Amino acid sequence: MAATSLICRECSSTYPLEAQFVCSRCFGPLEVAYAEHDASDVDSIRRRIQAGPRSIWRYADFLPLGAGSPTGSGEFATEAGLPAGGTPLVRADRLAERLGLREVWVKNDAANPTHSFKDRVVAVAAARAKELGFTTLACASTGNLAGAVAAAGAALGMPTYVFIPADLEEQKILSTGVYGANIVTVRGNYDDVNRLCTEIAGEREDWAFVNVNMRPYYAEGSKTLAYEIAEQLGWTVPDRIVAPIASGSLFTKIGKGFKEWIDLGLLEAAGTPSGLPAMSGAQAAGCNPVAAAFEAGQDVCRPVKPDTIAKSLAIGNPADGPYAIELARTTDGTISQVSDDEIREGIRLLAETTGIFTETAGGVTTATLKQLAEAGAIDPDERVVIVITGEGLKTLDVVRGTFECHEIDPRFEQFERVEGRTEVTV
Amino acid sequence: MAATSLICRECSSTYPLEAQFVCSRCFGPLEVAYAEHDASDVDSIRRRIQAGPRSIWRYADFLPLGAGSPTGSGEFATEAGLPAGGTPLVRADRLAERLGLREVWVKNDAANPTHSFKDRVVAVAAARAKELGFTTLACASTGNLAGAVAAAGAALGMPTYVFIPADLEEQKILSTGVYGANIVTVRGNYDDVNRLCTEIAGEREDWAFVNVNMRPYYAEGSKTLAYEIAEQLGWTVPDRIVAPIASGSLFTKIGKGFKEWIDLGLLEAAGTPSGLPAMSGAQAAGCNPVAAAFEAGQDVCRPVKPDTIAKSLAIGNPADGPYAIELARTTDGTISQVSDDEIREGIRLLAETTGIFTETAGGVTTATLKQLAEAGAIDPDERVVIVITGEGLKTLDVVRGTFECHEIDPRFEQFERVEGRTEVTV
Ligand SMILES: Cc1ncc(COP(=O)(O)O)c(C=O)c1O
Ligand SMILES: Cc1ncc(COP(=O)(O)O)c(C=O)c1O
Ligand SMILES: [Zn+2]
Ligand SMILES: [Zn+2]
Repeated sequence: MAATSLICRECSSTYPLEAQFVCSRCFGPLEVAYAEHDASDVDSIRRRIQAGPRSIWRYADFLPLGAGSPTGSGEFATEAGLPAGGTPLVRADRLAERLGLREVWVKNDAANPTHSFKDRVVAVAAARAKELGFTTLACASTGNLAGAVAAAGAALGMPTYVFIPADLEEQKILSTGVYGANIVTVRGNYDDVNRLCTEIAGEREDWAFVNVNMRPYYAEGSKTLAYEIAEQLGWTVPDRIVAPIASGSLFTKIGKGFKEWIDLGLLEAAGTPSGLPAMSGAQAAGCNPVAAAFEAGQDVCRPVKPDTIAKSLAIGNPADGPYAIELARTTDGTISQVSDDEIREGIRLLAETTGIFTETAGGVTTATLKQLAEAGAIDPDERVVIVITGEGLKTLDVVRGTFECHEIDPRFEQFERVEGRTEVTV
Repeated sequence: MAATSLICRECSSTYPLEAQFVCSRCFGPLEVAYAEHDASDVDSIRRRIQAGPRSIWRYADFLPLGAGSPTGSGEFATEAGLPAGGTPLVRADRLAERLGLREVWVKNDAANPTHSFKDRVVAVAAARAKELGFTTLACASTGNLAGAVAAAGAALGMPTYVFIPADLEEQKILSTGVYGANIVTVRGNYDDVNRLCTEIAGEREDWAFVNVNMRPYYAEGSKTLAYEIAEQLGWTVPDRIVAPIASGSLFTKIGKGFKEWIDLGLLEAAGTPSGLPAMSGAQAAGCNPVAAAFEAGQDVCRPVKPDTIAKSLAIGNPADGPYAIELARTTDGTISQVSDDEIREGIRLLAETTGIFTETAGGVTTATLKQLAEAGAIDPDERVVIVITGEGLKTLDVVRGTFECHEIDPRFEQFERVEGRTEVTV
């Protein structure tokens, strides 16, 4: 493993690669540090990646796992746990045309095993948890993480405890319970759930909370989105990434992924001052702490009480908010907010131009792309990638009532009467 | 293209590769015939496949499309339409252990773009429809096909008409309507819908009904499941396939896929008299025309009125029923039926041992595997592949009430009171 230590983002203190997430000196968040790769070795690293399995484990050289990591090789290699990653990057010409852009790509992470990008982060956290000898997987979740943890536990044969806000979408609860997870619904919002889980993590020594005590490993999983996008674009860096922000972990780690590969020489820097893609974050207006701080020119976020249909993004007190703001600023990016109506329209726009059906979080992302395009904030010649992080089947309630069906008896005359009269009422 | 003609399964009359599905001489069903590949060319065929995209188009040599077919090359190549196929084959040791078997694999076709194997058949039918100049895509559907057609139309920029029974699962209707499809709900069962669509197909010249006038092309899409399984098993043939049967098209075409590759010498024949895997078909007891005929030793199916939670398999008058029976017989296979309770248990069994959440059709398949294992019909040393054809999020209603959640305030003491008391009530 190339990972060497955990390092504090604030004071650079280092710690061994164990289940720790806060710096005991300054209370800053810890992340994984790696030994420098040998830059003269770039070709062999690229070849090793290309020979790897079509999952996040092809990037094992850049993930914090030991010798026992589930690598394997060959396009169809199998592995322990669920096959996370390897999701399609689809060129979306019809979407681009609707928005007056030239080149838009959709990274469809709804194609993961439990249909959100959370399978990536759970795969890394769970593999590390096994290495460290934990017996139970757990999480605080806004919905998707619960399903990913429950499924990973089922695949690996580990019991799971998931903690979720009590008002979550029923689809997310049912698709978690089916795996036999222990589900605790908490009367409160995600920030309450998270506080409770931080306390429980301190009390249950053999529990790996993937996004609490295992958070440094968990977070590294999101880097693989940047790696895949770059590889799928023929080992190049796009001009802009549009991605959603809840805690801000996904957004900042996509930036970290590109930076690592550019620094190493695996990728050529983008033509921007930072060398990175312009990083455009997306939030719902009903839970906008990062967007609001960005717009106001502030460095830290003021917590909010979430009220939006984008429940998976409903984190009012985002742990990585300041780092998300910093990343958007230093890459000439943006952080936007969109209304619930724009979210519904975004879901529809993506569906009818690409055939991809996303959940509310992807509606936030698509609506943000639209907002930026209409405001002229995107150069029409940019190569833009939007990151669709979750599946429409998990937030079906927002689709109900947005179109009409025509009910008939099975007779041709009845069909003739309704033909061409189906009116879409979005 | 290696396809040469349409050929009648009954009287071997041939027809040009157009939108025709019944023999005008004997009313038998038509299927696609191919020029023989040169068997001395096996290595170069294999190499061409391996260099192809990770979707069904890597098998373009075996699909009935012209020069304009969306092939492309390289692992991450993109293509027109949605990226169907390339789904995981996962070894399921925990499931095998529960059933006393040695080697069980799950082919997870819920990982397709719209989360069922129907994306494969639609991809082929839609591509051929475009070649033949059709302007509108349509289908008669038990649910999954509607979503696949609607999404393909959105991706390709073609209008769509989908016809479904009025009592379909709401999840399947909502996840179809979001693409802007014209939805006609028919008061009646699938067999009524199908009859109506056959009539409409005769009246609307520029409509391609993927499973009516385009059925020969559509059906070829399912062969790719056999190809992928063989390739993922290192170019070998498994001992047994367990797959669901509605019209019987999927089941018989999986058999055709293995046979083509064995005949060509791409695969070594299985150690069975037929050389094919034992083909085990799966039906719901509430819609069992093929299983009932198989058990009774008959060659044709007596139509039934479906009444089962496995709505996607609710075809009472299965077009390919006789061919499914013939295939099961000639491969020393089986055709089973399972109750609605067994289906629910099958869903749960698969979820908690593999992390894969399937719809009712996959519950039928998993329950059939269990039934065969318990009856001693499977040699414990067999290498068995079960084909999971659809996604649990689309039939969520059958999961409701099968487990408990514990609701608490966000306080540690309250958590302590419920810990370990989550009881699963399946
Ligand atoms: C679908 C989806 N997209 C995006 C996010 C944002 O994740 P992060 O907390 O890393 O910002 C989440 C988080 O739960 C999510 O479920
Ligand atoms: C999920 C699923 N599995 C299996 C089938 C069986 O298909 P066939 O009609 O080819 O037998 C269907 C058909 O609708 C389906 O939706
Ligand atoms: Zn510190
Ligand atoms: Zn004939």
